[in-house]
Amino acid sequence: MSKSKVAAIVGGGVIGGGWVARFLLHGWDVNVFDPAPDAQRKIGEVLDNARAALPALSDVPMPAEGRLKFCDSLADTVTNAQWIQESVPERLDIKLKVMAEIQAACPSSAVLASSTSGFKPSELQQGAARPEQIMVAHPFNPVYLLPLVEVVPSVVSDVALVAGAKDILTSIGMKPLHVRKEIDAHIADRLLEAVWREGLWLINDGIATTQEIDDAIRFGFGLRWAQMGLFETYRVAGGEAGMAHFIAQFGPCLTWPWTKLMDVPELTDELVQTIADQSDAQSGMHTIRELERIRDTNLIGIMRAQKQTNWGVGELLNEHDLRLQQLG
Amino acid sequence: MSKSKVAAIVGGGVIGGGWVARFLLHGWDVNVFDPAPDAQRKIGEVLDNARAALPALSDVPMPAEGRLKFCDSLADTVTNAQWIQESVPERLDIKLKVMAEIQAACPSSAVLASSTSGFKPSELQQGAARPEQIMVAHPFNPVYLLPLVEVVPSVVSDVALVAGAKDILTSIGMKPLHVRKEIDAHIADRLLEAVWREGLWLINDGIATTQEIDDAIRFGFGLRWAQMGLFETYRVAGGEAGMAHFIAQFGPCLTWPWTKLMDVPELTDELVQTIADQSDAQSGMHTIRELERIRDTNLIGIMRAQKQTNWGVGELLNEHDLRLQQLG
Repeated sequence: MSKSKVAAIVGGGVIGGGWVARFLLHGWDVNVFDPAPDAQRKIGEVLDNARAALPALSDVPMPAEGRLKFCDSLADTVTNAQWIQESVPERLDIKLKVMAEIQAACPSSAVLASSTSGFKPSELQQGAARPEQIMVAHPFNPVYLLPLVEVVPSVVSDVALVAGAKDILTSIGMKPLHVRKEIDAHIADRLLEAVWREGLWLINDGIATTQEIDDAIRFGFGLRWAQMGLFETYRVAGGEAGMAHFIAQFGPCLTWPWTKLMDVPELTDELVQTIADQSDAQSGMHTIRELERIRDTNLIGIMRAQKQTNWGVGELLNEHDLRLQQLG
Repeated sequence: MSKSKVAAIVGGGVIGGGWVARFLLHGWDVNVFDPAPDAQRKIGEVLDNARAALPALSDVPMPAEGRLKFCDSLADTVTNAQWIQESVPERLDIKLKVMAEIQAACPSSAVLASSTSGFKPSELQQGAARPEQIMVAHPFNPVYLLPLVEVVPSVVSDVALVAGAKDILTSIGMKPLHVRKEIDAHIADRLLEAVWREGLWLINDGIATTQEIDDAIRFGFGLRWAQMGLFETYRVAGGEAGMAHFIAQFGPCLTWPWTKLMDVPELTDELVQTIADQSDAQSGMHTIRELERIRDTNLIGIMRAQKQTNWGVGELLNEHDLRLQQLG
């Protein structure tokens, strides 16, 4: 019998908690470090959600859960780990300090990955004892269900370690997207930020509410994007004439007047309050806990639906079933 | 027994064909006008797809199909219609000419709607005999499956006619989103264009391929957007601290360096060819017809999954089942 694998999760918020669940439910032992007094309660809540949801994605049994341990020191947390995931607040000074403390205690063979949504790996490697050990592994909430994880090395990251990291992520049911050139905010958050900025303008200018914007997405192109993304959708829309023809048709709109709103709206207190009020009106009748459960049930259904066509996330799930079967 | 309802579809491309299917499969008689020699074949193909897909969304039988008629003149097409949908090419001069011809022959009580993705209704009303009759009803491909339709009146549009139009759209299983203030490209396409622009930059700068961008969407936030949209996703992510707190945290990134790419990339022949080549590499092994079938099967699965939670599109489908039951 092989020795248990150990993941060290540093920072136990909603993202760190999601990582805990991902590894634990795939049989890894998990050490957690988070000095916040309510960290255990919060991680327990994420684990409850994950246990109710993740196994429903597979048609074969999951492995037995690993052992969960809350540690009193960062050194104890990382000392015997093969994977170390940093999910502390999004401030470079904090991340650099934590990275240094981790590297002072962890094996040099371990993957040392940051959940950062904005920083480049080369920024996180500044002044590190072993910069080649550090990479970005940026997941998406809920981490225990959404497969995507952006794996971003810098030019000095260890190539073999990055390849091993991708294998491990695949083994816990995730889809590692290798970002070949580091860039601020990687790929997905750049796309999200573009929509967010336009959405803020629409609210700021009184064109649409948060509810109307969300409806425009979830009753329309959101249903396409869940399976095809952007370019593939346009490939299909372009039909027999082909992609180049489609772009030639659609491209010119980039210089139409709608693009006038490309500067950034000022996030005044008034705009923030407007958004918060509209969001309350939209779904203040549900608790966040209720919304999480609805979301997770829908995510399972949406992903399982694609197993039938073995397309996109469906192919990933079917492959993961095979992998679980070989283990079991 | 009530007299058949008649829809006139002017322009039979992929969007017009989708409208034909939506109305026909909901029991409306449909007149089509499209002088293109292959219009009948193309609409026949869309109808094949729709017949294989749309009924699977309902748990109760659909009404008997209406009668489909290809007309030789625009006047014959619209003379007895209650709904007239213009889906001709996206050029204002063409649309204005067609609108004038339609109004010369159609009942003044009919809804006269344009599928335009970019023009404002006030632009389409220029010089019209009865500007108050004209509105935008902007659908999304595939029109026979995706529920969203942006209903955009101008300030002179007839309020009762717009309300009636929304009722009709609801009766054929669609989700009318009333855009209260006309704006170039309405709501959804503004959001899409923001992502498209950022995607072009990522390709132009060699950061990501079409496949990598699509994967970033469909294995990640696309799965959330299919049910929740943008703001609701952030409401849940923000957790107990609330939406205003979340924005205060996330908002500052709008002024981080990632926003430097807000100008428009030049659509050189080289960039267009790069995109077309990457798209071919991504899924050139499938015909467009195959991709349409995979898409439709996935869309049905994704939407049906949400019936279970009665959330978003699930609520819409359940309500539509009730409506079909009352008819049947």
